[in-house]
Amino acid sequence: MKLEVKKENFVEWYNEIIEMAELIDKRYPIKGMHVWRPYGWKLVRNLDNLIRRVWESTGHKEVNFPTLIPYHMFEKEAEHIRGFGGQVYWVTRAGNNELEEPYILRPTSETAMYTIFSLWIRSHADLPLKTFQIVNVFRYETKQTRSFIRMREFHFYEAHTCHKDYEDAERQIEEDMEMWEEIAKKVAIPYVLCKRPDWDKFPGAEYTLGADTLMPTGRALQIATMHQYGQNFSKPYDIKYLKEDGTHEHVHQTTFGISERLIGAIVGIHGDDKGLILPPEIAPIQVVIVPIPGEGVMQFAQKVRNILSSEFRVHLDDREDYTPGYKYNDWEMRGVPIRVEIGPREVEENFVTIVARDERKRMKVSVEDMVERIREELANLEKRLYDKAKKKMEEMIKEFENLDDLKKHNGMGIVYWCGSMKCAEEIEIKTEKKILGYPVGEEFPEGKCIVCGKETSNKIYVAKTY
Amino acid sequence: MKLEVKKENFVEWYNEIIEMAELIDKRYPIKGMHVWRPYGWKLVRNLDNLIRRVWESTGHKEVNFPTLIPYHMFEKEAEHIRGFGGQVYWVTRAGNNELEEPYILRPTSETAMYTIFSLWIRSHADLPLKTFQIVNVFRYETKQTRSFIRMREFHFYEAHTCHKDYEDAERQIEEDMEMWEEIAKKVAIPYVLCKRPDWDKFPGAEYTLGADTLMPTGRALQIATMHQYGQNFSKPYDIKYLKEDGTHEHVHQTTFGISERLIGAIVGIHGDDKGLILPPEIAPIQVVIVPIPGEGVMQFAQKVRNILSSEFRVHLDDREDYTPGYKYNDWEMRGVPIRVEIGPREVEENFVTIVARDERKRMKVSVEDMVERIREELANLEKRLYDKAKKKMEEMIKEFENLDDLKKHNGMGIVYWCGSMKCAEEIEIKTEKKILGYPVGEEFPEGKCIVCGKETSNKIYVAKTY
Repeated sequence: MKLEVKKENFVEWYNEIIEMAELIDKRYPIKGMHVWRPYGWKLVRNLDNLIRRVWESTGHKEVNFPTLIPYHMFEKEAEHIRGFGGQVYWVTRAGNNELEEPYILRPTSETAMYTIFSLWIRSHADLPLKTFQIVNVFRYETKQTRSFIRMREFHFYEAHTCHKDYEDAERQIEEDMEMWEEIAKKVAIPYVLCKRPDWDKFPGAEYTLGADTLMPTGRALQIATMHQYGQNFSKPYDIKYLKEDGTHEHVHQTTFGISERLIGAIVGIHGDDKGLILPPEIAPIQVVIVPIPGEGVMQFAQKVRNILSSEFRVHLDDREDYTPGYKYNDWEMRGVPIRVEIGPREVEENFVTIVARDERKRMKVSVEDMVERIREELANLEKRLYDKAKKKMEEMIKEFENLDDLKKHNGMGIVYWCGSMKCAEEIEIKTEKKILGYPVGEEFPEGKCIVCGKETSNKIYVAKTY
Repeated sequence: MKLEVKKENFVEWYNEIIEMAELIDKRYPIKGMHVWRPYGWKLVRNLDNLIRRVWESTGHKEVNFPTLIPYHMFEKEAEHIRGFGGQVYWVTRAGNNELEEPYILRPTSETAMYTIFSLWIRSHADLPLKTFQIVNVFRYETKQTRSFIRMREFHFYEAHTCHKDYEDAERQIEEDMEMWEEIAKKVAIPYVLCKRPDWDKFPGAEYTLGADTLMPTGRALQIATMHQYGQNFSKPYDIKYLKEDGTHEHVHQTTFGISERLIGAIVGIHGDDKGLILPPEIAPIQVVIVPIPGEGVMQFAQKVRNILSSEFRVHLDDREDYTPGYKYNDWEMRGVPIRVEIGPREVEENFVTIVARDERKRMKVSVEDMVERIREELANLEKRLYDKAKKKMEEMIKEFENLDDLKKHNGMGIVYWCGSMKCAEEIEIKTEKKILGYPVGEEFPEGKCIVCGKETSNKIYVAKTY
């Protein structure tokens, strides 16, 4: 099977590589639900561990709530149910009985968690409550499904916090932004952070921040969101605490969500015509050792494997029926960051040849320096991936002063917008793109609304989206 | 809140300790579905890691299949659907639409996996296929639910394998027995392994082996099962391979399942009147450091924490508003295997006092020897837990020659049984116990059937069960 050329036909390249590299199997007979194969599942578990480590480092504690939510719990917050109601899977029967009250499969876990948070939180000493869970969620998508990007069952990272007041919840969102920067850097994915326009915020949120990256198609992919809920959920779910002055107050809440879309971004942004390029942090195999047949090679390769295994995730490819060349291609296709080649010359002179997946230059390294050099090369690769992706994203983001040019642009546009719904509609209809929102933490000089020409200091990002 | 005395009222003790120790919260509004709290979820994740490590050590690869199974996939194997049909949750609606074909929530994953295995397996070179997954499964239990023991959503470890012939599948079951012995030893749970009688085998299996332990109530708890499927699933799911001689053959299959019941056994069997006693392998905290206020204590405690952290899961309890005595009780209740006490004397003489959770004797250990001694003490504790549990289980297993005595016995009975259904029914009805099956790997001299007196060499285990 030959892989498509990525630049010429990204969509087919993407669909092919995720199956060729055995991340998933798409042939499961429910559209939008796929099977994680061992290599793909290891990638997911490494991503789990990265996100878990970062979240735990700020005192978030992992919990695990049931998959099913009784309907009466789900429907308490009016906007939330309006936003998700059309997308939920309903469990209406159990065994041979119709259920008295149907359950839904969690589309997200606010409504499952908050009923219980109201029991966990009693006084100011219980705050802040910082929790997260890593689970699968279910959404009945009616648009065309896409692997990792628009799924009906998908892997989801959701942090939920409760705070004594709005300001403390705001500090949480600051912390979320820092944690997200750390996670995104480790998987070498650049992004822009926007405050979503009101009509596009999460159902039930005061406001929503979205992190979008740009796929090679020029379309924006939302890969993380942070929501300030204020007291919008704590009031219907009655989550309140005893203040130091003896009165009761409802908590302020936030959430921070990341989904398996991040894997879609990693595949789509880093890969090349040879296949995947996986960031070292989450690569199932960080170092693959390929022996080139010859006297003493296998023994030397095993010694090298034993040394490297204490530091890295290593695989020695000792298959007998394949040539070294076949193995190089195979592991490049699967995105292994570092290849170690060992042949008769390496054995004789006591060195190894290392090759980084992206640059593919051969480097001669002594066995003594091997661990240190591979550590460096992995760090260099991570940085190169990030820098390259960031440069490419920045090249695809341009300022525009008229809608026709913005429409033609394949990427993200930055434009002035007066804030009126009328102008927003015109932007979205005429450019066939979506308003992503206001860049977070940036201020701009006055300029003219791209539609009506009114003076404004509001700039927004606009792009086609997934 | 005061904990019940375990010996006097086991059932209440059990229900209290799992909430006091904050393993779970039972107040989720669907019966049989509970919330894992941070401490409990860490315990689960450590058990995940233990089982994952053992299974991976024999070449099993972790996969992850969707939660939902289309009905037509589920109903292919006739006995399987008869066995599980009355226990499944049905998804019949999505958004505002009735589904054309309902989905079920997996009660176990044979039917989800085997459709895809038929695509993965082509030739003898693909065999054996050894996979496992760690997921939640769903069963609509109509009997009274019990935490960990009879749940409607529960954590499940399921290994699924495919083999070229029956003999190779049999070898897999031998390997399963060895892996299970390793897992059970690490959590210090003794068990008896029985071949279930035909009427009690897994729906669709050729035969089923069940590992049962004895809870303090005298009732048997099934904590692991291994099934030989032969070709019972591979034929309806059409999983076949090309043999070396050019013909096609259906594979032979096995499964090996472990559930969160194992946590029920760990809680119930090891705990005492002070609370949980957790096996070091899976304890969320292996070593808790409790400072006794005084000059230089906190600094010394932090130094000790830093040294121990490289080897163990360590927590330094630096809460200011609690006395050392309160903390001792608190961590004993939560089952932390080793406590390190540090007070002014320890600081002065540069030693620590260590106390194992079960024996609760104080041991003076120098800072230099500390890591090594704690490692030994953890291993000793694990062994003591196992030996004690094993001795207790063996005391509760007795041979019987008449049904009245067997009925009165609080534990497991071993009796001769001729193999007739009539005698089996009489045993079960008269003793109000269940036939667990034939001990695996044991042979017995001839004896008389406990009911009809016929000569037989069949001995069976009989017990009340959960």
